Amino acid sequence: MDQFATAGHQLLVNQVPITQLVDRVGQTPFYAYDRSVIKQNIAQLRAELPGKIKLHYAIKANPMPALIDFIAPLVDGLDVASSAELIHALNSSVAPTQVSFAGPGKRDAELQMALASGIIINIESENELKRVIALSEQSGYRANVALRINPDFELKSSGMKMGGGAQQFGIDAEAVVNILPLLQQPSVNFRGLHIFTGSQNLSAASICEAHRGIFALAAKIKQQLKLDLAHLNIGGGFGIPYFPGETVLDIKPIATELKGLLEQYQSEFATTEVIIELGRFLVGNAGLYVSRVTDIKQSRGETFVIVDGGMHHHLAASGNFGQVIRKNYPVAIANKMNLPTGDNVTITGPLCTPLDLLAKNMSFPQIEVGDIVAIYQSGAYGFTASPREFLSHPQPIEVLV
Amino acid sequence: MDQFATAGHQLLVNQVPITQLVDRVGQTPFYAYDRSVIKQNIAQLRAELPGKIKLHYAIKANPMPALIDFIAPLVDGLDVASSAELIHALNSSVAPTQVSFAGPGKRDAELQMALASGIIINIESENELKRVIALSEQSGYRANVALRINPDFELKSSGMKMGGGAQQFGIDAEAVVNILPLLQQPSVNFRGLHIFTGSQNLSAASICEAHRGIFALAAKIKQQLKLDLAHLNIGGGFGIPYFPGETVLDIKPIATELKGLLEQYQSEFATTEVIIELGRFLVGNAGLYVSRVTDIKQSRGETFVIVDGGMHHHLAASGNFGQVIRKNYPVAIANKMNLPTGDNVTITGPLCTPLDLLAKNMSFPQIEVGDIVAIYQSGAYGFTASPREFLSHPQPIEVLV
Repeated sequence: MDQFATAGHQLLVNQVPITQLVDRVGQTPFYAYDRSVIKQNIAQLRAELPGKIKLHYAIKANPMPALIDFIAPLVDGLDVASSAELIHALNSSVAPTQVSFAGPGKRDAELQMALASGIIINIESENELKRVIALSEQSGYRANVALRINPDFELKSSGMKMGGGAQQFGIDAEAVVNILPLLQQPSVNFRGLHIFTGSQNLSAASICEAHRGIFALAAKIKQQLKLDLAHLNIGGGFGIPYFPGETVLDIKPIATELKGLLEQYQSEFATTEVIIELGRFLVGNAGLYVSRVTDIKQSRGETFVIVDGGMHHHLAASGNFGQVIRKNYPVAIANKMNLPTGDNVTITGPLCTPLDLLAKNMSFPQIEVGDIVAIYQSGAYGFTASPREFLSHPQPIEVLV
Repeated sequence: MDQFATAGHQLLVNQVPITQLVDRVGQTPFYAYDRSVIKQNIAQLRAELPGKIKLHYAIKANPMPALIDFIAPLVDGLDVASSAELIHALNSSVAPTQVSFAGPGKRDAELQMALASGIIINIESENELKRVIALSEQSGYRANVALRINPDFELKSSGMKMGGGAQQFGIDAEAVVNILPLLQQPSVNFRGLHIFTGSQNLSAASICEAHRGIFALAAKIKQQLKLDLAHLNIGGGFGIPYFPGETVLDIKPIATELKGLLEQYQSEFATTEVIIELGRFLVGNAGLYVSRVTDIKQSRGETFVIVDGGMHHHLAASGNFGQVIRKNYPVAIANKMNLPTGDNVTITGPLCTPLDLLAKNMSFPQIEVGDIVAIYQSGAYGFTASPREFLSHPQPIEVLV
């Protein structure tokens, strides 16, 4: 967790010492997102990936408006997963033509917004395409359409598989030819393909394998459809390390593989924009969830540190979001950095449930009431992915620093 | 799931056919809570439990203000877990002296609100009691205090253990005598004990065993402290069935056991009010989560039904709230009741994540776009215990019917 520097015993968030940041925010708990870390993440990706690859930000990872506005000029496009995210995207500096909308079960009202906005609609089923065509014919807005493909292979080592086998996502690869007549309707402006295989992957080798599969599948579908692809969105799914033993994903082999694939498929995709769409990988390590110690107690030989934040604000850190076995997120006493650590303690939130656990049996410097507890890797799927009204405690704030 | 009647193919919510209710609410998804079911739950409990037992509602299970107002005249008191819940409780018809506030890590501002309200503060640690005394001395509001005890035994068969062993909850039973001097401070009005062992328990035998342990422990502590107990809150934790094979908790053996305990400890607790505090058991089976089918698709031999609601509104039903192995909640096609069922289908929400699953391989009548999907047992820990901003989809509404 070296993305944040320290000065003395203070953790620095974009050079602001944590105690000063707490004073500036005016309350705990809060989420803080470090602009310099986000910028560095994007710069490093840009430096390593082939120049031809376009980089999109998947807003769902963190839809804080100020953060979207900060990222917008640094990326080539945005992906949205709901109409509220679409509004955020249109409010940013990104051109609507560089915005795509994915998600099974889009409502008519959402599709209508997408049509009127001129964004790309990632079609998830034949029925959805028919609804888009009907809405387009009614409204006169031509539909910019890409097909989301459920590939005929699976991504290995993925935290969450989103392609291969039977899925609610996308159109089965082998069924794409059936909808060619729909793509040829005059109201449809066919733009390309979206092939996404899974998220939170920390294995460069399996991402490379997925990329090979995606390029081959896209070339095959292009041949079947005999339509040009203005773009090919190869998804993202680059993971970040959360737990002991996990390491930062190495982009270099992925970049090398992509360079090779761009050369290999040069004739098929000469005029095709290849897009990588990343959420967590751009912002996940830039975020901290910050709370303050309200009580410390002993119970039958164990020490419990109780903070003013918890699972209601950060469900994933409590181990209750998609994890089968709970593991500790990286946690620090942010006003006591670089101090020797002592006996194991357990850090819990204020809720009346044993699920409200932020650190189980971890070793820290001596903790006192008032100390500041920071949970790392909290920039993605934290604030919005938590049941913030559970037990009706005060809401956290989000700040971009 | 016979708490809701049907008429023809319509599920009835307090006699309103589901399609009429959908029209009346004006949108899907929504949560609907049936007044008649709640009333019946409370009436049945009252009929079975000894008359001396007082019944409190734990607001955390469902803090919808209209629902609290409906329940308030039917119960003897309310339990709150945060300052927002305290405000709801004070807004209801329940007297502040019948409101108690539990939870580790209460902030000074919350304790101050509790003192000014005249409610009972369930003390969770020695340090918290010291803070209450200091605040009471500063403000002049005498503190109505009960001790939450971490018992020296565990509740068997509980969905979540909240007593026994080392815990963040309450004061270890064996350490209570140490704080007697604090309880004798003039600013402290000692009221009694709160001994809660765990939640979502479906075994009457293990609840009876816990009650025996609680009475014995309370009698022992009373003797140690040599203080009268105005009340003894024996917690709740009565479970409701969610999954195949689970059955409704039989109250009769619990009532019989409590009658015996009241007689056995008649001399110790002659002037003590014995309180059972229930949340889920009063409202859980009265709630439905209602969504509508937006798309149906085939993928590699499986049928996926996509609805406009999902895990973001009902985290527990998706299997992502405290469950280790995902199981299906009871689900019905609420406008196609009493019809023969067909092949298995999977019902998912609209989110771009495989976690967004409401029914995996369940059999229903033939489903069409527009049909109404109702998830039962959704009256507790649904709306507030879900990450409702995850992917920024439209919010559900709550209605009391």
